[in-house]
Amino acid sequence: MRQIVRQNLASSFGAKLIEAQDAFGQLCVGIDPHSVLLQSWGLADDVAGLRQFALTVVEASAGRVSAIKPQVSFFERFGAKGYEVLAEATQLAHNKGLVVIADAKRGDIGTTMDAYLDAWFGDKSGLYADALTVSPYLGLGATSEVFDKWISLGKGIYSLVATSNPQGESVQKASIHGHSLAADQWSQLNALNGTEFGPYGAVLGATLDLSSFGIDQSVLNVPILAPGFGAQGALLSDASKIYGALAKNVAYSVSRSVLQAGSAGIVEAIESANRELAVGLNK
Amino acid sequence: MRQIVRQNLASSFGAKLIEAQDAFGQLCVGIDPHSVLLQSWGLADDVAGLRQFALTVVEASAGRVSAIKPQVSFFERFGAKGYEVLAEATQLAHNKGLVVIADAKRGDIGTTMDAYLDAWFGDKSGLYADALTVSPYLGLGATSEVFDKWISLGKGIYSLVATSNPQGESVQKASIHGHSLAADQWSQLNALNGTEFGPYGAVLGATLDLSSFGIDQSVLNVPILAPGFGAQGALLSDASKIYGALAKNVAYSVSRSVLQAGSAGIVEAIESANRELAVGLNK
Repeated sequence: MRQIVRQNLASSFGAKLIEAQDAFGQLCVGIDPHSVLLQSWGLADDVAGLRQFALTVVEASAGRVSAIKPQVSFFERFGAKGYEVLAEATQLAHNKGLVVIADAKRGDIGTTMDAYLDAWFGDKSGLYADALTVSPYLGLGATSEVFDKWISLGKGIYSLVATSNPQGESVQKASIHGHSLAADQWSQLNALNGTEFGPYGAVLGATLDLSSFGIDQSVLNVPILAPGFGAQGALLSDASKIYGALAKNVAYSVSRSVLQAGSAGIVEAIESANRELAVGLNK
Repeated sequence: MRQIVRQNLASSFGAKLIEAQDAFGQLCVGIDPHSVLLQSWGLADDVAGLRQFALTVVEASAGRVSAIKPQVSFFERFGAKGYEVLAEATQLAHNKGLVVIADAKRGDIGTTMDAYLDAWFGDKSGLYADALTVSPYLGLGATSEVFDKWISLGKGIYSLVATSNPQGESVQKASIHGHSLAADQWSQLNALNGTEFGPYGAVLGATLDLSSFGIDQSVLNVPILAPGFGAQGALLSDASKIYGALAKNVAYSVSRSVLQAGSAGIVEAIESANRELAVGLNK
């Protein structure tokens, strides 16, 4: 039984996420239509191939997992036509009850950030997202105000905090006046967040030693997005071991390890990942 | 006379930039079709308004400045249709000899970053860019290898280093083992860069005290993109005062202060900004 406080969550991202995860588990399927994957699926590296790949992954995910995470770069690669496919895929996912986490890592200030949020959460773009990944290089404080409107409409934000790639450490472990930057970002997230679960979450790579980033696992009550499972090396069966007290807050994202099963094998690959995660969460 | 070493620059981004700046000066016109600006231009906040705004700014810039800098968020706001306009505007700018700096602040790792570069530099998207702004939160080292292919094809990269907004300082002034993060990024840029001008540039806000970021102005031979002029407070007439020895390397970007002149006034506003910058550069 999950210990997350549920009151006053009526329309929040946190409430939506918990509801979906209680029904369909904590797995999140990444949609990464890399040219190599398109090829291994027997699809052309073009817009038609992109569309078939993306819609197949959404259909395979619906009813089996709580969330999908389209990796936006692989759609942007095809420009306007790629965004048409992304709009269709995200709308289909939304209609099928999946939580849509757009992995775009957008980061800017003021009216520019406003426009990015409008793109992913508003009604002018045709795109649909419940949550967006954002990059804090320009400062989280720079952007928190621009989130307010969307938070009140039930949208969520996952800020990059500590990622899986070793090269990121030089920035992410940087400190100022003896404070870890990552921990500082966490504090800001929690200050914004109060006692409610969500809407400000964080990306925390699964292959990291979290304590080395100065992250105190015991005090956090925020959604976590965890890439790094499967092909990147972390095991879903180690979920509790890796995240400790945070394990219940995590959306466990798998991409390549599931996608490489191809269109014929993806349903079984998702179900297998679900079983492995259940072991990892002692369920 | 500019002191930049020119040998072996045949097809490089640096060579292209120098050629354009020698012919048309160092001003860069930002294309920021914010809804408020669309309204003040008498345009609807829709795709048709976006298109008229963007194409008008490109036409007004051609032959008067060396570069344009479309702010991608304001196009992404309209999804696929916005990207169609961005493709048309960037292709028009390219055909008119303008250097196109896509201000997208993309940042990711491995194949995901590959796909972003393919989007902006490749031939599948319809988008055209000579250079792209990138965000280094995931680490510059994470992405330098993926740039190589495009660098050899004459493309350029402007990495965020120190931005104008005060909230960014907590990340950008962070230090690790006593090293300033910004200075560290600079060192990486220069190590990659060698003695050639470009292709790895940096975004350095005009309203900053650069020395407080540990940036040694005397040793740098890289392109700089400088937002923050005009509406954000810095004066083009202070260009040399702000950038010192770096002033010759800078693309001075103006957006709101020029764009708010409207479609009837933008040509005169650009020419006025050019005159102010000439004063600032003692030309």
